Amino acid sequence: MDAALTSYLDAHAEEAQELLTRLCRQPSVAAQNLGMAEMADLVESLLQEAGFRTQRLLTEGAPPAIYGEQRGQSDFTLLLYNHYDVQPAEPLALWHSPPFEPTIREGKFYARGAADNKGEIAARLAAIRALRAVYGTLPITLRWIIEGEEEIGSPHFAAIAQQYASLLQADGGLWEGAGFDSTGRPELHLGTKGLLYVQLDVRCLGIDAHSGAAPILPSAAGRLVQVLSALRTPEGRVRIPGFYDTVRPPSEAERAALADQPDREAELRAAYQVERFVDGLTGVALRERYAFAPTCNIAGLGSGYTGEGVKTVLPASAMAKIDFRLVPEQDPQDILTKLQQYLQSEGFDDVQVTVLGMAEPVVTPIDHPFVQRVATIAES
Amino acid sequence: MDAALTSYLDAHAEEAQELLTRLCRQPSVAAQNLGMAEMADLVESLLQEAGFRTQRLLTEGAPPAIYGEQRGQSDFTLLLYNHYDVQPAEPLALWHSPPFEPTIREGKFYARGAADNKGEIAARLAAIRALRAVYGTLPITLRWIIEGEEEIGSPHFAAIAQQYASLLQADGGLWEGAGFDSTGRPELHLGTKGLLYVQLDVRCLGIDAHSGAAPILPSAAGRLVQVLSALRTPEGRVRIPGFYDTVRPPSEAERAALADQPDREAELRAAYQVERFVDGLTGVALRERYAFAPTCNIAGLGSGYTGEGVKTVLPASAMAKIDFRLVPEQDPQDILTKLQQYLQSEGFDDVQVTVLGMAEPVVTPIDHPFVQRVATIAES
Repeated sequence: MDAALTSYLDAHAEEAQELLTRLCRQPSVAAQNLGMAEMADLVESLLQEAGFRTQRLLTEGAPPAIYGEQRGQSDFTLLLYNHYDVQPAEPLALWHSPPFEPTIREGKFYARGAADNKGEIAARLAAIRALRAVYGTLPITLRWIIEGEEEIGSPHFAAIAQQYASLLQADGGLWEGAGFDSTGRPELHLGTKGLLYVQLDVRCLGIDAHSGAAPILPSAAGRLVQVLSALRTPEGRVRIPGFYDTVRPPSEAERAALADQPDREAELRAAYQVERFVDGLTGVALRERYAFAPTCNIAGLGSGYTGEGVKTVLPASAMAKIDFRLVPEQDPQDILTKLQQYLQSEGFDDVQVTVLGMAEPVVTPIDHPFVQRVATIAES
Repeated sequence: MDAALTSYLDAHAEEAQELLTRLCRQPSVAAQNLGMAEMADLVESLLQEAGFRTQRLLTEGAPPAIYGEQRGQSDFTLLLYNHYDVQPAEPLALWHSPPFEPTIREGKFYARGAADNKGEIAARLAAIRALRAVYGTLPITLRWIIEGEEEIGSPHFAAIAQQYASLLQADGGLWEGAGFDSTGRPELHLGTKGLLYVQLDVRCLGIDAHSGAAPILPSAAGRLVQVLSALRTPEGRVRIPGFYDTVRPPSEAERAALADQPDREAELRAAYQVERFVDGLTGVALRERYAFAPTCNIAGLGSGYTGEGVKTVLPASAMAKIDFRLVPEQDPQDILTKLQQYLQSEGFDDVQVTVLGMAEPVVTPIDHPFVQRVATIAES
């Protein structure tokens, strides 16, 4: 970083902290609809103070997303994402200082949202102010969207992004996140897996029976076991025909990046108290499986009596929750269709499939120039 | 029944009702240790009044079982079983009259225990009084044991039976129970299946993981599915080697009795809202399966998240409760050993097996002279 910039930042450190204090002092709990309008106003005015032309991106039922644009010296356009809402502060009794009264203790700044995500907004604002003060203008063009519902699962973000797609065009996009690996290098996350989350319900009887009738009554729990063992192998490989058809293997660049990652095996083994990973994997093969494999995971299983001791019951119904993590180019809708067809073809037409979640996988190619540019900056 | 006996019973109906009233007026809730000593005294004195030589069968920690013996004209010895304890009467607000103040409403007798099991004790006492009054003595020799813990699962009954085995020898034993079939014929139950109730626990991780780690972490739920599908076929047949070795097929007489049973299929279908029984069974084959087949029933299944909606979790552990109903000559201890050996041989040595219940199967052969004698009396 050049000396003029460093010296500006040093001189204005208190001002940056004041920014963070203003952001954290304003409650903005989306789950409780607390202070959201005031927070939107504050964010919009801070963006304006930092030289942005702002606009409110509105959609039915959501607090406004604040959008700002600021032209820079080059046409290269960077899209920034942040959110101005925070998690509920309860239970309040566990706080050492009030959640919305920023307090410094032993050199650390305490307030709800300080780390997620108001600190990141303040840091970006401080950097933008410094660039403008030292150079008069930004080196690149910025577009910035700050929504108000991330902590409740961004229920309206897809609608906003679709409605205002033209404003969000850019040469690259950044979301704060990731951290530093065990060797201290910054990590870049280049996408997220997709999701298909379903609940499978099997019902064989109208009511639970006494288990004395087990010789002649069909078992929902037994049937669910059959369904689940048809879905995945003992090691977790998915048995649905066509499930892996569109999965693309990692590129050479992606493999090289995996090989370059530090070894986290001991750390993972200790964290989960597990001796052996699936298929005995280790090294780069383990990292590749972790990063690039789609899954069929049993997230929940329930049937009959699960309390203490004995109940001799033949349960009328049984249930499993399954999450499929999907990778490019798997399409959750296509996977759902394949799942349903497979259940039909195996004779499990009595299994009720309820979709509880769907998301498409997204990935930024590791050899994309934008990724390389961010990596170079992060390493410098 | 002969005329003298009938006329005695008619003349002393009020006295019989007074017996029932005395029994029901005395609280005797084993679960709450309420009135147990007073009830034991009452039962013993009633047996003495009816001509029995009594004795208290004592074992550490249990209320006394009351035993009585009365010689009759013949040496044929009949053992009667009853219990003098009742279930807790709570919730009291749902009673139309106080539970321990017998009340007659519309010709019916209401009190806790009136039907289970004080009514049965009173009926037997009234019959014995009538026989003694009319004939001066009983036609056969009676031994009678009345315990005080049936409603809490008879935790000391096996110990008592073992300790006082010589007192309990008889040519046949009767316990009230059973009812009338759909054609109005009395039913005789000639035994009960045995039980092996186990809990299977699988743990693959020390703590639950986020399901993002599913590509590399072992799944306890997936492993449990494998164990369960190794234990039983889709239709419920048990896969443990040797499980059926000692099962004896029904005798000709037993088959004939099954053929003679009324058809309960429509009733069962309606009760359980089920269209088709296991293996499409119907008719005598269905009744035979119901009465004579041992089972491996999944009474409970639990792992991970089973609440509303989505939780993307890879559960650290999974659990199943299994009840095996056993038939002669299966031995629950032998079946447990075979289960454990099978799990070992299939590589499921990480499955923890906890025994929660065990009982041996018992059966009285249908062609036993005592059974035929009771059947003849019931039909006359």
